[in-house]
Amino acid sequence: MGYLHEGHLSLARLAKKECDIVFMTIFLNPVQFGPSEDLDKYPRDPERDILLAENNGVDYIFKPSTEEIYRSNYRTYVEVEGLSDIMCGKNRPGHFRGVTTIVLKLFNIIRADRAYFGKKDYQQLIIIKKMVSDLDLNIEIAGGPTIREKDGLALSSRNKYLGSKERENAAVIYRNLRNIERAVNAGERDLEKLRNNAIKDLEKNIYVKKIDYFDIRDAENLKEIKDPKKHEAILAAAAVWVGKTRLIDNIVIDKKKY
Amino acid sequence: MGYLHEGHLSLARLAKKECDIVFMTIFLNPVQFGPSEDLDKYPRDPERDILLAENNGVDYIFKPSTEEIYRSNYRTYVEVEGLSDIMCGKNRPGHFRGVTTIVLKLFNIIRADRAYFGKKDYQQLIIIKKMVSDLDLNIEIAGGPTIREKDGLALSSRNKYLGSKERENAAVIYRNLRNIERAVNAGERDLEKLRNNAIKDLEKNIYVKKIDYFDIRDAENLKEIKDPKKHEAILAAAAVWVGKTRLIDNIVIDKKKY
Repeated sequence: MGYLHEGHLSLARLAKKECDIVFMTIFLNPVQFGPSEDLDKYPRDPERDILLAENNGVDYIFKPSTEEIYRSNYRTYVEVEGLSDIMCGKNRPGHFRGVTTIVLKLFNIIRADRAYFGKKDYQQLIIIKKMVSDLDLNIEIAGGPTIREKDGLALSSRNKYLGSKERENAAVIYRNLRNIERAVNAGERDLEKLRNNAIKDLEKNIYVKKIDYFDIRDAENLKEIKDPKKHEAILAAAAVWVGKTRLIDNIVIDKKKY
Repeated sequence: MGYLHEGHLSLARLAKKECDIVFMTIFLNPVQFGPSEDLDKYPRDPERDILLAENNGVDYIFKPSTEEIYRSNYRTYVEVEGLSDIMCGKNRPGHFRGVTTIVLKLFNIIRADRAYFGKKDYQQLIIIKKMVSDLDLNIEIAGGPTIREKDGLALSSRNKYLGSKERENAAVIYRNLRNIERAVNAGERDLEKLRNNAIKDLEKNIYVKKIDYFDIRDAENLKEIKDPKKHEAILAAAAVWVGKTRLIDNIVIDKKKY
């Protein structure tokens, strides 16, 4: 969606390392924004984006207009049912339908062999993998690691919205995800207790205005879980409003470690 | 969907004439049938299908099992909104969603350059063209003419369901479509009158048990119309139950003729 940061650029470099030719698509997709969301104020800096992309291994940039992508009388939408109405989908109805639709269109336009997505948008990554499998698409999906600030805050174009006090406090999300990881790896099995502790800790922070969700789920199929031992990997994921900014983050805990 | 008739075979021969290699997919797609529809009793004869396909220019047949196509935990659906809930979609909710989903999957599996569909399923053809355009699919859609019995009845695998008296009377659908074509080409502009006359004539036939719809629409965008002169081509289309069999048919009237 542009306004590139190190998270995007690390994906570009990874792609360049693994592939012959790297395309980057830059498109602020209106269809994945709700009517009261931040489409209009979403940060933009196309000239800086192009420079950064060029300097990080991108060979071609596809940066279409909204009208080129959604031509007059546009009507076709793709939905991965069951995965699109939980977590981020619960508070953002239609969001993932917008994501899968634009991603499928871009796959068809670019006809890449492999596409890279950040693990920071973990639910998005899982949904896109499911779409690719279900629709028999001939494309490989690769996930790149979440890039973080020194205090742990996950990089996001939306971090720009944060005031300085909010920015300082935003790392509380990652700290609570890490607490869960540490506890699970140390043998704690009561996920509901861990979850409630995290929510309590977040609620104590006066810059945290709302917790959309704080979930612990199976990292493959995103189902809610009780006993971590019964799952190959577990996902702790949150969407939290810091001031007027909605931030998401997650951590995946591999069974090998607990 | 198999149980091939001359309508399908004419498409195969047309494809062979225009293309190097012809694939035929044979798949009775459960997702486009409603719970109370005729999936279970839909006629099947795979051995005859294969023989007929081979004799009519088909180089390869793709005949997957339901389990190969809808693997466990299948979740992804494609919908062309606004065109899928009118006409056949009105009485068959989810039908076209099932059609577009399977067609997109088959396009991705076969990766054909061109795909042939019968004009008998006219709404389906329009919806598939719209999906291809909206999703930027790299495939050309070709429509083949409706093949008819001597008395005008459009060929359909479902004609097999008709008793001999029902079969005799089923041509009443095409006769009424032709009446409209003749009247429009002769200068008649009152489409509502033509439509009502057709419905009245159909209702007089004791083998006609129900009229799902009898519509006159713009042949490009399927919108309802009043003045034929304002449209490049008009579509007269009907879905009518003859006994316990639901039959569809249509006729496209070109502006050049009226």
